[in-house]
Amino acid sequence: MEEKLKVRFGKKLRLIRKGKVSQEALADKAGLTRSYIGRIERGKANISLETLYKLADALAIAPGELLP
Amino acid sequence: MEEKLKVRFGKKLRLIRKGKVSQEALADKAGLTRSYIGRIERGKANISLETLYKLADALAIAPGELLP
Repeated sequence: MEEKLKVRFGKKLRLIRKGKVSQEALADKAGLTRSYIGRIERGKANISLETLYKLADALAIAPGELLP
Repeated sequence: MEEKLKVRFGKKLRLIRKGKVSQEALADKAGLTRSYIGRIERGKANISLETLYKLADALAIAPGELLP
């Protein structure tokens, strides 16, 4: 069964984030909570478009680069 | 004030969709309602990642192409 989108997104976010900042720092920059970042990375959250853009802005990358 | 993400996304979706299918046909293909497609195109909906992928699949384009 093809891995769920949420799981694939979480894995990709973690991969990109780990090379740059801690979950805490990303949460601060994106205006989200650290626990929500953790949930997203564990593939538990079906994020919104606006959250996608907040994460991309905070990581200084284009939103499309976060898409699995 | 920079146009809201929801509005920019709606405009882009309408532009791409109009060249291909009706709102009704897109709704059917994407497993969404026509009225929801209308709300998205009017910039009223902060869609989820999964809806982004459903729309892209239904339009046979990559999800990143829908991002404003």
